[in-house]
Amino acid sequence: MDDSVEPASLIDQFTCVRQLSERLCEPLEIEDYSLQAMAETSPAKWHLAHTSWFFETFILKPFEPGYQCWHAQFEYLFNSYYNGVGAQFPRPQRGLLSRPAVKEVYDYRHYVTEKMLALLTDIDPNHRPEIISRLELGIHHEQQHQELFFTDLKYCWSKNPLYPVYCNSPLENLAEPAADAWLNHDGGEVSIGRCRDRGFCFDNEEPEHAVLLAPFAIANRLVSNADYRAFIDDGGYQRPEMWLSDGWAAIKQQQWQCPLYWRLQDGQWLEYTLHGMQPVNPAAPVCHLSFYEADAYARWAGARLPTEFEWEVAADTWAGRSPLAGQFLESERYHPLATSLDFFGSVWQWTSSAYLPYPGYQPAQGAVGEYNGKFMCSQWVLRGGSCVSSRKHLRSSYRNFFYPADRWQFTGLRLAKNNTDK
Amino acid sequence: MDDSVEPASLIDQFTCVRQLSERLCEPLEIEDYSLQAMAETSPAKWHLAHTSWFFETFILKPFEPGYQCWHAQFEYLFNSYYNGVGAQFPRPQRGLLSRPAVKEVYDYRHYVTEKMLALLTDIDPNHRPEIISRLELGIHHEQQHQELFFTDLKYCWSKNPLYPVYCNSPLENLAEPAADAWLNHDGGEVSIGRCRDRGFCFDNEEPEHAVLLAPFAIANRLVSNADYRAFIDDGGYQRPEMWLSDGWAAIKQQQWQCPLYWRLQDGQWLEYTLHGMQPVNPAAPVCHLSFYEADAYARWAGARLPTEFEWEVAADTWAGRSPLAGQFLESERYHPLATSLDFFGSVWQWTSSAYLPYPGYQPAQGAVGEYNGKFMCSQWVLRGGSCVSSRKHLRSSYRNFFYPADRWQFTGLRLAKNNTDK
Amino acid sequence: MDDSVEPASLIDQFTCVRQLSERLCEPLEIEDYSLQAMAETSPAKWHLAHTSWFFETFILKPFEPGYQCWHAQFEYLFNSYYNGVGAQFPRPQRGLLSRPAVKEVYDYRHYVTEKMLALLTDIDPNHRPEIISRLELGIHHEQQHQELFFTDLKYCWSKNPLYPVYCNSPLENLAEPAADAWLNHDGGEVSIGRCRDRGFCFDNEEPEHAVLLAPFAIANRLVSNADYRAFIDDGGYQRPEMWLSDGWAAIKQQQWQCPLYWRLQDGQWLEYTLHGMQPVNPAAPVCHLSFYEADAYARWAGARLPTEFEWEVAADTWAGRSPLAGQFLESERYHPLATSLDFFGSVWQWTSSAYLPYPGYQPAQGAVGEYNGKFMCSQWVLRGGSCVSSRKHLRSSYRNFFYPADRWQFTGLRLAKNNTDK
Amino acid sequence: MDDSVEPASLIDQFTCVRQLSERLCEPLEIEDYSLQAMAETSPAKWHLAHTSWFFETFILKPFEPGYQCWHAQFEYLFNSYYNGVGAQFPRPQRGLLSRPAVKEVYDYRHYVTEKMLALLTDIDPNHRPEIISRLELGIHHEQQHQELFFTDLKYCWSKNPLYPVYCNSPLENLAEPAADAWLNHDGGEVSIGRCRDRGFCFDNEEPEHAVLLAPFAIANRLVSNADYRAFIDDGGYQRPEMWLSDGWAAIKQQQWQCPLYWRLQDGQWLEYTLHGMQPVNPAAPVCHLSFYEADAYARWAGARLPTEFEWEVAADTWAGRSPLAGQFLESERYHPLATSLDFFGSVWQWTSSAYLPYPGYQPAQGAVGEYNGKFMCSQWVLRGGSCVSSRKHLRSSYRNFFYPADRWQFTGLRLAKNNTDK
Repeated sequence: MDDSVEPASLIDQFTCVRQLSERLCEPLEIEDYSLQAMAETSPAKWHLAHTSWFFETFILKPFEPGYQCWHAQFEYLFNSYYNGVGAQFPRPQRGLLSRPAVKEVYDYRHYVTEKMLALLTDIDPNHRPEIISRLELGIHHEQQHQELFFTDLKYCWSKNPLYPVYCNSPLENLAEPAADAWLNHDGGEVSIGRCRDRGFCFDNEEPEHAVLLAPFAIANRLVSNADYRAFIDDGGYQRPEMWLSDGWAAIKQQQWQCPLYWRLQDGQWLEYTLHGMQPVNPAAPVCHLSFYEADAYARWAGARLPTEFEWEVAADTWAGRSPLAGQFLESERYHPLATSLDFFGSVWQWTSSAYLPYPGYQPAQGAVGEYNGKFMCSQWVLRGGSCVSSRKHLRSSYRNFFYPADRWQFTGLRLAKNNTDK
Repeated sequence: MDDSVEPASLIDQFTCVRQLSERLCEPLEIEDYSLQAMAETSPAKWHLAHTSWFFETFILKPFEPGYQCWHAQFEYLFNSYYNGVGAQFPRPQRGLLSRPAVKEVYDYRHYVTEKMLALLTDIDPNHRPEIISRLELGIHHEQQHQELFFTDLKYCWSKNPLYPVYCNSPLENLAEPAADAWLNHDGGEVSIGRCRDRGFCFDNEEPEHAVLLAPFAIANRLVSNADYRAFIDDGGYQRPEMWLSDGWAAIKQQQWQCPLYWRLQDGQWLEYTLHGMQPVNPAAPVCHLSFYEADAYARWAGARLPTEFEWEVAADTWAGRSPLAGQFLESERYHPLATSLDFFGSVWQWTSSAYLPYPGYQPAQGAVGEYNGKFMCSQWVLRGGSCVSSRKHLRSSYRNFFYPADRWQFTGLRLAKNNTDK
Repeated sequence: MDDSVEPASLIDQFTCVRQLSERLCEPLEIEDYSLQAMAETSPAKWHLAHTSWFFETFILKPFEPGYQCWHAQFEYLFNSYYNGVGAQFPRPQRGLLSRPAVKEVYDYRHYVTEKMLALLTDIDPNHRPEIISRLELGIHHEQQHQELFFTDLKYCWSKNPLYPVYCNSPLENLAEPAADAWLNHDGGEVSIGRCRDRGFCFDNEEPEHAVLLAPFAIANRLVSNADYRAFIDDGGYQRPEMWLSDGWAAIKQQQWQCPLYWRLQDGQWLEYTLHGMQPVNPAAPVCHLSFYEADAYARWAGARLPTEFEWEVAADTWAGRSPLAGQFLESERYHPLATSLDFFGSVWQWTSSAYLPYPGYQPAQGAVGEYNGKFMCSQWVLRGGSCVSSRKHLRSSYRNFFYPADRWQFTGLRLAKNNTDK
Repeated sequence: MDDSVEPASLIDQFTCVRQLSERLCEPLEIEDYSLQAMAETSPAKWHLAHTSWFFETFILKPFEPGYQCWHAQFEYLFNSYYNGVGAQFPRPQRGLLSRPAVKEVYDYRHYVTEKMLALLTDIDPNHRPEIISRLELGIHHEQQHQELFFTDLKYCWSKNPLYPVYCNSPLENLAEPAADAWLNHDGGEVSIGRCRDRGFCFDNEEPEHAVLLAPFAIANRLVSNADYRAFIDDGGYQRPEMWLSDGWAAIKQQQWQCPLYWRLQDGQWLEYTLHGMQPVNPAAPVCHLSFYEADAYARWAGARLPTEFEWEVAADTWAGRSPLAGQFLESERYHPLATSLDFFGSVWQWTSSAYLPYPGYQPAQGAVGEYNGKFMCSQWVLRGGSCVSSRKHLRSSYRNFFYPADRWQFTGLRLAKNNTDK
C-alpha cells in the first residue's frame, strides 16, 4: 500500500462502489434478483450479499472487536469458494435461496457498510496496513462482481422469450471506427506484470518479470461482427481444419453455429442485448465468443491470437497506462459499440496464453490466497476489460481468466501475427 | 353433466377455487413465487398463470367471440404439455421466468376470472354442455394445482438451510389414533370406477366396470412413522431381499436411507414440514415415501400394498362415499397428523396397481384428451388424497398417479394381505 | 413336478440344452465371444458361463457332497443378480472379462455338465423333488439365455460397419401370409395362468386364477413391415397425438425414426439381420420395436394392444396348446419371416399389460425366488415367443417382460380392439 | 531429413518397429486384443491396425502407383482423428469391432509391411524427401502406439478381478536409489526446442527458440512411493488447501484417495502391475498420478513442478543428450523400479507447463498436420519417457501431453523450486 494514497480517498472509493452495486440493480424487479440459469451464474441477490460477506469475513470479523454477525448462517450461504473460511452452500443451488428476501439482503448490506465506515474512520494503527490492503482487495472484488452482475443477468434473461430490457437508451455508436492497421513490435526482452508498490494489483499480476518476445504485429482494432459473419458465411463452423480438437468437439456437441446471443430470424441476424433484441451491428466488436471460436476465427483469418505478453506490451506501447479511453461501465451502454483504436474496453480479448502463475508467484497468506492461485489450471487469460467493467478497475497488467468454452462474458478478440520481416 | 347441478353453484365453485389459489399464496414473499428446484416442480407463479391459461385456452378462446388474449406469448409460456394446443416453454426452465412479474400474473388471473364470469352469466345455450363440462374440468384442474403448489413449494424450500415456514400453527393431532385392525373382504365381482352421470369425474375413472377380486384384508389405518422407524432400525435400507430390483438400484444410486424430509440430528429424527423443522411424530402417518419404499416396507411387514381395486372397494365399504372425513386442505394443517380410521386424507396411499386404462377407456376429444390418457405408462396409482388436497376434489374412484421414484408428494401407505381363510 | 415325467427324459433335456448352447456358438470367432455393446447385453462367453454357474450354485453346491468349485471367483464373476448368493461383478463391465478365456469357459461348462450328470444318475432320494424342480428351472433358464445369446450378439454386431453374418441361409418365407381377419371373443370370466401340476412353469405364471374380460377382437396375424411403413410414411414419428407421453419423450431424445435395425439407403429400407443386411421384407412381421412404438402404431391403426389376458385366452382358443406351430429357434432362420396364422413364434408380442404379480403370487423360497418377482415393476408383458425361442420353452401362459424402451429383442405386435357389438 | 541418415538404416528401423509391435502381443490371448475399458483406451488389435493404416494412408496411397487397399472400409475403421482423411469410426466403440478378426489384422499388417518394403527399396527420387520424412514420422508414431498398447492393456486388465499377468519376471530393482540432492541452475537465457536439421523431431518441438529463466533448483530423483505415502498419511487427499480448484473437484467427484492402481488390503498397500498384483515398493517412483495429484504433492512438499523449460535445460545439463540411461521398454520390466539419478525413463514427469505452441510454430502441411497442433489446448506437458517407452524414441526436447485428470499413463513427478539464493 502506497503511503501517498489518502485514507479518505479509499473510504470514498469504498462508499462509491457500495452505492454503485445497488444503483445497478434499480432496473430490476424483485423477481429478477434470484435468477440462476446455470451453475456458473449467480443471482443478483447473491452478488449483493457475497460482496458484503467479503468485507464482513476478511475485515470486520478479524479487526472489529466484538463484531456481531448479521446472521449466523450467512457465513455458509454467501461464501463462494473459500475453503479456508469453511463449507459453502452448493453453487448450482444459489437460485433456490428465496430467503433471505431482497429487502433483508439490502439491510445486511447497509449494516456491513456502516460497520465498515465506523471501523475505517477509527482505524487501529496496529492493523492499518493489513486492513487497507484488504479494503482495496474488497473494493476490487466488488467491482468484479458488478461486472458479473451484468453478464449473469444477461444470460438468465436471455432464456426468457419476453427478452427483458435493462436499459432503454439507444445503442448509438460512441466512437468512429478505426482504419485497419497492423502495429509492429520488435520483440526482445520486455517487462511483464506489476509490483504492488505502484498501486493496487491482484497477486496474479506479480511478480514483475522479464520475458523474451519474438517480433510480432498486433491489430489496431477488435474483430467486428462483419468480420465474424464472413467467417460464418465461409462455413467456419463446418470446417474441422479451423478448430482445435476440443473446440471442434464442443461446437458439435453444443451445436454452436454463431455467437451466444445471435439468432437468425427471417434471414436477418439479431442479437439479444441488455438494450433488448437488436439487429447485429456490423461495425461493432463481435462478442460472446468462446476461446475456441476466437481461436478458430484467427486461424481462418490467417492470423493468431496474441499471447498475454504481446498484448500487455502492445497496450503499454500504444494505449498508454492512464487514463484509459474506451467503452466501460461508466459509458452506460451495456453492449459493445463501434470498434476503435482503444486497447481497453468494449470486450475482453482472448489471448493464446493459458492462465498460469508467473515465475516466483506467491499467493497471499490465508483464505484470501484462494482468490486467484487455485484457479491457475485449464483456463485462459483475457485482457483489456469490457463495456461492463469499471474503468478504474483495469490496468495493462490485469489478467482475467475463463474456461475455453465460456461464452457468457463479453468476450471477443484482437488479431496478432508473427512479424517475420524483423 | 347432471342437469340437477345449478349453474349458480358451479359459478360459486369457480369463484371459490380462483380465490383460494390466491389466498394460499399469502404467506409467500415475492421471491418465493419463482422457485423451481427440479424439473418436476413448478413455481407458484407458474401454477397461478397456468390455471388461468387453462380457462383461457379451453373456454374463453373457443366460446367467447372476439376474446382478446392478455398476452400473445402466454399461450406458449403457460402451456404445460398440450401438444394439441402448440409448443411449450421447456418445463425445467419455468423457474427462469422472472417476467411476467408476480403482479402481472395476478392481473392476468383477474382478467381471466372476470372474462369467465361474464361468459358464465350469459352462457351461449348452444355450447352450454361443453362449456359446463370444461368449466368443471378447469375447477378440478385448478384444485390439483393447489395441491402441487404445496408439494412444489415444500420441495423448493427444503433446499434452503433457513427452512422457511409456511404456517406457524402448531401441529397438534386432529384425531385419536386408531386401534389396529384388519378389515376383511370376501372378494368376488365388484364394481370399479364411475360414470359421469353421477357427477364429475376424470376420464381415467371411466368406464365403470366389473372386476373379480380374491378375498383380502386391508389395514384400518395408515402406516405410521413409528412403524417405519422399526423398518429402518431393522436394516430395511440395507437388505436387498426387501426390495424390487429397480427400487434397490434407486436407493443405492440416490443414497436414500429414510423418507425424503427426514434427517438424523444428534440422535433425533427431525422432519422438514411446512410448519418448520419438527421432531418426527411417531403416531403420525409416514410420508414422502417413494413407491419403492412403500413396497419394501410392506414386504418387510409380511404384507403387501392393496391393488387400486381393493382400495376402492374397501373405501366404498368402510368409509362411505360422502361426506369425506379426514385431514384435508380445509384442515389448515399442512402435514399429516395422527393416524385414524379415515380412508381419505392425510397422505396419498400407494397401491400395487400400475396406472393403466380401464377396459373401454376413451380419452376426451381434442387437446383436453391429453389430460390423463397419455400418462398411462410406467406410473403407479395412488388413492385417497392428502392433507393438502381439497376435500371436495376427492372420490373413492379418484386415481392419482406418480412415478415409482417420486417422493415429493405427500405419499404414504396402508397395508393389505391375502385373506386365505376364505 | 409331475411324477409321470421320466427322469431319463429330463436328463435328455438337460444334455440337449447344454449341447445346444455350444452348437449355437459355432459360427463365432473367438473375438465375438466377449462383445458387450450396452449394459443390458451380455457377452456370449458370459452366457455360457452363467448358465453353468446356475447349475453349480443351485444344485451342485447344495446337493453334491464335497463338490469342488471350478474356480473360487466364478461365483462372483458369473452371478447375474442373485443378492441371496452374494455380490456380483458389475453388469456393464462383463465385456471387459477377457479372462477366463473362451477355452476355459468351455472347460468349466464341461466340468459342470459332467458333475451334474453324475449327480442326476445317482440322485439322492431325500432331495429328489427339490433337485428335479431346480433342474427343470435350470434347463428353462438356459433356454432363455440361448435366446439372449442371439439378441445380444445381433445388437453388438450391428455396431460393426462390416455387418457380420451369423447364418448364410437365404431368408425364404416359411409360410403363406394370412388373409386378414379379426377373431371375436365374447369375454366373460376366463382362467388365466397355470399351476405347476400341469408341467413346468415359472412362478410368475402362478397361481391360475379367474379374470373377467369384456368382449374383444384380436387380429389373426402379426403387424407386418408393410403395415408399419404406412405408419412411418403417414408421419407417425412426427405426430405427438399418437404417442404416450413417455414414448414421445423417448423418440425425441433418442431420435428414433424407424425400427431399431432399419436404415434408409438410396431410398430403400434395409434391415440388419443375423443373415446379413437385407431389404426389408414387406410381408414379414415388423420387429425390434419398443413398447412405445407398438402402442403408437396400434393407436394410429385405430386399434390397441391386447391385454396379456386377452392374448392368453385367444391363444388357448385359436392356437391350441400343443404342439406349437410357428417359427422358432428350431426353424434355423434367425429373422421373422412371412406372417401367418400362428399365435406363437416369429416375434414377441407386446401387450398392454404391466408386468405385475398375479393375485396370490408367491416367489419361490431362497435365492431362486429372485428369478421373477423382483422385476415386477415398470416392465411390460410380452407373449408368444420369437424366431430365436426354443419351441419347447413356450406355453400360452408364458410371460416375458421388458422395459417399454427396449428394442433389441425380437419384439413386434398383434392388434386388438374392443368388441362393442356384443 | 539429414542426408547422412542411410536409407538402409531407416528400413532397418521400420522393420524392427513393425516386428516389435507384434512381439509385444505375444503374451496376449485372442480375447485380450479387443479390450476397451474407456473411450480413451484402444484395443491392442486397433493399435496394430491403425499403425498400418498410417503407413497405408500417408505413404502407400499417395506414393505407390496403383496401390490396392487391403479393405475399403479400413480407411474408416482405423482412422483415429484425421479429419483431413475423412470420417472416423466412433472412438468409444473400438472395442466392439470383433471383426476384422485378429488373424486378419495380422494379414493386413503383413501386407502393408511388404508393400512398404517394396516401395522403400525402389524409392521414387522425386518424392524421396517427403517419403523419408513420413516414414520417420510413421516409425515414431508406431513407437507411441507401442507405449499406448501397454497403458491401455493395463487399464483394461485392471478391471478384471483375475488380474491378468503380462510378464512373470520378478520386479527386482535395476539401479541403486539415489541420494537426495537439489541441482541448482542459474537461469538466464536458454535455448529450448529443436530443429529438424539435427535429426527427427515432432513439429511441436519446433522451432528452437530462446527462453528467459529465473534461477531454479530441480530434484536429482523422482518422487518415490514412500514420499507419496507420507502425503496420503498426512491427509493430503482431505486438505483442500493443497489442491487446485479443478483438482479438488476431481478428487471429490471421482473419490480418489490414492494412485490409480493402489488398493489397501488388510492394512497393506498393493498395486496392480503388468507383473501382477504386487506390494507397493517404497523405493520405486510413484506412478499413475494425475496432474492434479502431482501438483498437490509438490505443494504439500513445499516445492513445485518444474516448467517444461526448466526440465529440458536440466536434462541437457545433467543427463546428457545421448545415450539415454534409465529404464525403458528395452529393460523388459513393465513397471517403474527404484529411483535413480536418471532424467529419462521409468515414469513420465508432469511439468507445470500447459501444452502450447512454441513461438513461430507451424503445423505440418496436410492431414499429418493434425498430429500435434490441434491438441494444444487444456493439456499439460510431460517429459522424460517411461518404462514402456522406446529408448530411441526420446529426446530432451520431446513433449508428451495429457489432460490433467488422466492417470492411466505411467505418470509421476520430479520436484523443483525457485532458487532465491541467486
